[in-house]
Amino acid sequence: MRVEIWSDIACPFCYIGKARFEKGLAAFAHRDDVEVHHRSFELNPNAGDPPGAPVTTMLVEKYGLSPEQAEAAERDVAASAAGEGLEYGEGREISGSTFDLHRLLHAARTHGEKAHDALLDAFYRAHFADLLNLNDQETLLRVVTGAGVDESEARAVLADKEAYAEAVRTDEREAAQLGATGVPFFVIDRRFGVSGAQPPEVFTQALDQAYAAGGGLVTVAAAAQGTDAPVCEDGACEIPDAKP
Amino acid sequence: MRVEIWSDIACPFCYIGKARFEKGLAAFAHRDDVEVHHRSFELNPNAGDPPGAPVTTMLVEKYGLSPEQAEAAERDVAASAAGEGLEYGEGREISGSTFDLHRLLHAARTHGEKAHDALLDAFYRAHFADLLNLNDQETLLRVVTGAGVDESEARAVLADKEAYAEAVRTDEREAAQLGATGVPFFVIDRRFGVSGAQPPEVFTQALDQAYAAGGGLVTVAAAAQGTDAPVCEDGACEIPDAKP
Repeated sequence: MRVEIWSDIACPFCYIGKARFEKGLAAFAHRDDVEVHHRSFELNPNAGDPPGAPVTTMLVEKYGLSPEQAEAAERDVAASAAGEGLEYGEGREISGSTFDLHRLLHAARTHGEKAHDALLDAFYRAHFADLLNLNDQETLLRVVTGAGVDESEARAVLADKEAYAEAVRTDEREAAQLGATGVPFFVIDRRFGVSGAQPPEVFTQALDQAYAAGGGLVTVAAAAQGTDAPVCEDGACEIPDAKP
Repeated sequence: MRVEIWSDIACPFCYIGKARFEKGLAAFAHRDDVEVHHRSFELNPNAGDPPGAPVTTMLVEKYGLSPEQAEAAERDVAASAAGEGLEYGEGREISGSTFDLHRLLHAARTHGEKAHDALLDAFYRAHFADLLNLNDQETLLRVVTGAGVDESEARAVLADKEAYAEAVRTDEREAAQLGATGVPFFVIDRRFGVSGAQPPEVFTQALDQAYAAGGGLVTVAAAAQGTDAPVCEDGACEIPDAKP
């Protein structure tokens, strides 16, 4: 089975949702048959450098909350994070563009899903627990190398703005095609969708449901046409009839 | 809609099947909504360097065909290729490992699907039309750079045996999970499967069938638990109720 998780580093419910999903997965009987594949999503594709203001400011200015309501909203998120055993710093600032972070995540994936996952966790920790500015290149490089990525490789990715850019955009296009309007967005076997930082048992239930449905494809046969459809199964592609 | 095509460069029916699929796609009314994504498959993961013998020799030695039967089988494949307007050289030799070719294809994809497609076509042409030995590094680099890939990037990929290796293995694992035992193997929206170099009209029909089914996900809801499932839709993740 294959689970794809679209998320953005700037999204607290992605941080929390990842932990909840992992608990739900741990409770799933066939967890060893599950491959998890994190995919890119930008909540604000037009973000530039971070404006250097607390997130609560935005809640006040953009959504008309009172400063007290804004503080309470951020405290609620912090409490949800704490409920999953996650650190969450006080006074988090509005994040800037996460495009480069997603490009670096794709670069890390070329070294395997574990390398990718370690970097994603490091980004979440840096942004939500340590309140680091990941739009500052030297800070970013410290976080990235701390997660096991080779520094010269990371610098090369950052220097070439097109490196892995298409991979990020492909992820985002697919999210849109699948109907995602927000994140975290979980897709199992491209057939079942779960939206949001659901409780762990919802993920377990979704995995159970997908498992019960089976991942098999509907085979589109050509029998009606009476044609053969040559397939290569080893080096001797050309002689289907002569196969032992 | 998303079509994934698993194939191997050493597989003549992948070469032919790609052309047939493209004709079938061109006849599909919603072709502009289709994304095609080629994926890696090795028919012979244990192949080393090419043995320097014609494919017909293998047909004789491994499958007990007479030399005349073997020649006739290879002529049949050449005729199928010609039927799709594809060049097919006479006297093709047994290919070696295609693992490095697949790694290079994944590297090309970081520059977009078009770059990937151009390289795949170049590999097929080199192997089937021009009868080049792609296991010879300098020959391979000429083909790769001829398809628009930067030479230093290609050399770096070839020098680092782990570069994109995991991406190739992931493709192969997924093919196995989806039930592919041979190639070409076509999967539409992870729901419909077509095996083999089918005639173009079968691909059009499969695309019609997938379109009619709709690509939508089955939403796994959490309503029964009575919980909310926080989602980030923009920077103001924490205040779903306050959204305008």
